Amino acid sequence: LLDESLHGFAKAHADIVQFNPEPRFVKRKTPSKPGKVALIAGGGSGHEPLHTGFVGVGMLDAACPGQVFTSPTPEQMLAAAQAVENGGGVLFIVNNYAGDVMNFEIAAEMLDCPCATLLIHDDVSIPETQGMGRRGIAGTSVVEKIVGAAAEAGADLAACKALGERVVHATASMGVALSSCTVPALGKPTFAIGDKEIEMGVGIHGERGRKRMELTNATEIVTYLAAIFDEELKPNPGQTVLLHVNGFGATPPMELYLVYELAHQFWSQRGVNVVRSLVGNYTTSLDMAGCSITLSLLDEEMIKCWDAPVHTAALRWGC
Amino acid sequence: LLDESLHGFAKAHADIVQFNPEPRFVKRKTPSKPGKVALIAGGGSGHEPLHTGFVGVGMLDAACPGQVFTSPTPEQMLAAAQAVENGGGVLFIVNNYAGDVMNFEIAAEMLDCPCATLLIHDDVSIPETQGMGRRGIAGTSVVEKIVGAAAEAGADLAACKALGERVVHATASMGVALSSCTVPALGKPTFAIGDKEIEMGVGIHGERGRKRMELTNATEIVTYLAAIFDEELKPNPGQTVLLHVNGFGATPPMELYLVYELAHQFWSQRGVNVVRSLVGNYTTSLDMAGCSITLSLLDEEMIKCWDAPVHTAALRWGC
Repeated sequence: LLDESLHGFAKAHADIVQFNPEPRFVKRKTPSKPGKVALIAGGGSGHEPLHTGFVGVGMLDAACPGQVFTSPTPEQMLAAAQAVENGGGVLFIVNNYAGDVMNFEIAAEMLDCPCATLLIHDDVSIPETQGMGRRGIAGTSVVEKIVGAAAEAGADLAACKALGERVVHATASMGVALSSCTVPALGKPTFAIGDKEIEMGVGIHGERGRKRMELTNATEIVTYLAAIFDEELKPNPGQTVLLHVNGFGATPPMELYLVYELAHQFWSQRGVNVVRSLVGNYTTSLDMAGCSITLSLLDEEMIKCWDAPVHTAALRWGC
Repeated sequence: LLDESLHGFAKAHADIVQFNPEPRFVKRKTPSKPGKVALIAGGGSGHEPLHTGFVGVGMLDAACPGQVFTSPTPEQMLAAAQAVENGGGVLFIVNNYAGDVMNFEIAAEMLDCPCATLLIHDDVSIPETQGMGRRGIAGTSVVEKIVGAAAEAGADLAACKALGERVVHATASMGVALSSCTVPALGKPTFAIGDKEIEMGVGIHGERGRKRMELTNATEIVTYLAAIFDEELKPNPGQTVLLHVNGFGATPPMELYLVYELAHQFWSQRGVNVVRSLVGNYTTSLDMAGCSITLSLLDEEMIKCWDAPVHTAALRWGC
């Protein structure tokens, strides 16, 4: 399924990407300028459009898809890096999951060019000190877009990594699930959740969240999540932010825009200034019902990078 | 829910659309050039991004959302027409459902400017002669994009309607459902479908299709659908086509691209030339699992119109 799907993806977006089946990676079609930092992300499949849908001018140079919910191999990462490295070194963008972190570390050791790693850990539903620390979830789209623009504009490896860390630090995400996802190979839901229950702080592989509670209305869900963000990021009145409402797969756009409206109201009432928005399915979990909210505190450089041209399968503007 | 969601939609895309709550319509933010034909579509909500996500430069001037799976009122259509008519007359783009057809007819009679109606009926799962005739489904995105570009380029009312009818005639769609959708107000699935069953030719409100069959693999599903298209449209070898794989809401992108790949192989093997593609959730049915395939035979004028700049919430390129 995965390889045929990726062949289809590459055919449908033949102006943007190329697919290499063995080892498996997707790279941008338009070559980068010599000296540009090569941005490479990767992770288990089942979260599309993350990361393959973000490959293209102004965002990622390559993405390495693993099997469903399974880390890609160091071999994939190494081959992708060798295919797109263009004299500016390689920045691996890694979501904080044990397998991904380990395999990207191995690839980085094997690579014989300047290389750095940017770790994404935006899921504030669990404490920073618990186990592996916080997971990387929907904030990834924001990080990859902003760092992608900086790299395209000529920022060097150290600058790309530093900007990325600034965005990660300024970004918090948290999800809520109404149903489980179903991994095709298993054919049954990953976890059980009652008809009248929701899972607050669910992970994008169906990991248990912060709290399981009775199904309530959207206003109460958004208020619960937003209060946690306020605590984490402490946005002051006048702060400019990006508000990203991300669908996990099976949530209709009508509901995503409702959650967006309620979150927008929550922060507007506190004087926080929502200046950029992203609503839709970007970091999914197969057919899971639910969504996440991501808030990023933006400075002027980040806004400029967000607005810069991007030409990928999932995000496209200015070109 | 609907009004709050539309307020959120308009805030998230404040550079593209404006929302008028009473009577309810969404119109493009950038005014059209004087003399441009105003394109107005509408229908029940629950199919987003159709039609609100297609409002903007190069596509629709306004969209009238009804309640979930419920036709908008003539009052909405009339108010939308009065808000966007700019000296070139109004083209109502109507999907072939009894309520929509009736209400757009009433609005057309009440309107005191040149007005025409374009009827979309691309669902080849039922015979043309049955009941109200064929339903309008995912081919709508293709029709609205192509006619939208022609109107933006200055085609007059008669030319827009004629081009639209040409596209409708050259377009066939058919869906397959793996689960039902759930209308929020009812809170339970619209129809029952077994775990091991699929509904071939399902409508976007969960209408019964052509055939209920045992769950089979993607290749067999695509071959079954594609053979019906071949019969309907009779594409010759060398024919240029647009292939649109549309998700109904809960189908992961990985599966949509798999279906796209298989359909692409089917027609490529027959010498049919897939020159344009669209893969994703465009004409949805809330949280229904499944997808539809749309094939449009394209001539040069249609390709030019497809490629023309468009700036809407759901489709965006060239500007």
